[in-house]
Amino acid sequence: MKISILTMFPEMFDSFLNTPVVRRAIRKESLVLEIVDIREFAPGSFRHIDDSPFGGGPGMVMRCQPVADALRKVRGREEEQAGGGVVTAALTPAGKVFDQAAAHEFAGLRHLILLCGHYEGLDERIFRRVDREISIGDFVMTGGEIPAMAVADAVIRLLPGAIRAESTGEESFENGLLEYPQYTQPAVFEGEAVLEVLLSGNHEKIRRWRLRESLRRTLERRPDLLEKRVMTEEEKEILAELRATATFSS
Amino acid sequence: MKISILTMFPEMFDSFLNTPVVRRAIRKESLVLEIVDIREFAPGSFRHIDDSPFGGGPGMVMRCQPVADALRKVRGREEEQAGGGVVTAALTPAGKVFDQAAAHEFAGLRHLILLCGHYEGLDERIFRRVDREISIGDFVMTGGEIPAMAVADAVIRLLPGAIRAESTGEESFENGLLEYPQYTQPAVFEGEAVLEVLLSGNHEKIRRWRLRESLRRTLERRPDLLEKRVMTEEEKEILAELRATATFSS
Repeated sequence: MKISILTMFPEMFDSFLNTPVVRRAIRKESLVLEIVDIREFAPGSFRHIDDSPFGGGPGMVMRCQPVADALRKVRGREEEQAGGGVVTAALTPAGKVFDQAAAHEFAGLRHLILLCGHYEGLDERIFRRVDREISIGDFVMTGGEIPAMAVADAVIRLLPGAIRAESTGEESFENGLLEYPQYTQPAVFEGEAVLEVLLSGNHEKIRRWRLRESLRRTLERRPDLLEKRVMTEEEKEILAELRATATFSS
Repeated sequence: MKISILTMFPEMFDSFLNTPVVRRAIRKESLVLEIVDIREFAPGSFRHIDDSPFGGGPGMVMRCQPVADALRKVRGREEEQAGGGVVTAALTPAGKVFDQAAAHEFAGLRHLILLCGHYEGLDERIFRRVDREISIGDFVMTGGEIPAMAVADAVIRLLPGAIRAESTGEESFENGLLEYPQYTQPAVFEGEAVLEVLLSGNHEKIRRWRLRESLRRTLERRPDLLEKRVMTEEEKEILAELRATATFSS
């Protein structure tokens, strides 16, 4: 797939372009990644890109013209190819909250275009020229650059060859649960030992312990995730046990 | 304040360290930012930092020792100074979801220590050595580096001198609502005109229009935010109107 990131601060992506996952996806030809400098679409030597908001108030707002022209250029090349599979998404705190389902959807696209806002935000008329408005969470950042990296990273690691395929299946959110606890060498660290079951070599016991811990952790920390999820009989049984224990101990 | 970021990939922060907001906060002496390479705490020339999980399964888990030693070093220096105001937070998908209230809390600390996990995750025993586990959202990234940048950016921009003080009050989430639409020059762009009210110069009308649009947008996109919020009489009145209109049009 291709990912285009439109930004006023292309140098913010220098480190990101050099991360192992990005480099591996590019080398395996799963990914073409372009960083587009919106300033190149602003006229004059001053590259006038922002202005005061109509109606007053603090801060500056990104002007329509450079952004609209940058979008047209990036999409124009696109239209020469076959249609479909293209989504333009603007990063904004007022957008729909990005999640793992959206990461999978984006990873199936031919071309994902991410637009980073800055200053107080983008002129509202720009949002009528994009397909989606997305947010990574209920907090305010300086601009859309770090959120765009977060989205791009979540998408790229799902592409073929970016990471070892078997590494993605058991992670948090992939099966609708938080991940179970992980332990590695040494078996005892500063007096704290790994649980017996993990050293037992009994695969069925280990599988059941991990499922139980995933369910326990999700129940304790993110019960909202359980509401959305269809449970197997085994999961229902374990959850009933966990809930009973929680009631007895309170 | 001081922010220490513990990571296996310090080079990922090169671009972040050069962003205008970070540089300004450092120049104004509101911020000391240190990036600590966890690999320097791993023994031998191989810098052995990860190992297979006990109990089997894909991927690698970060070992306790280098992380525990890095934490001790960063905190050790800390203990020489006065106590309190120090929080160590590990970035993990299973953590508490970070939000603007947490950004304000962290901005009031003396020292924030952010620990970035990688690979399949951190050995569970590490989490008993941190104060918090935080997540930036329900999606999986390659590591904690981009989430740590997101948290650091949200915190740093609240520090004195990082951005113009009057710019932060009217943003999304600061008052519990999504931000109203913004417009700038030109008044007509590709046939789309800015609303009359914003050109009127009538400050009271503009204020009321913006409040109405904030409430409308929050009601349409994020009704969950309204549930948590205490409303003024004016806001209750506007919301009642918006809800009535929504009912009539459906």
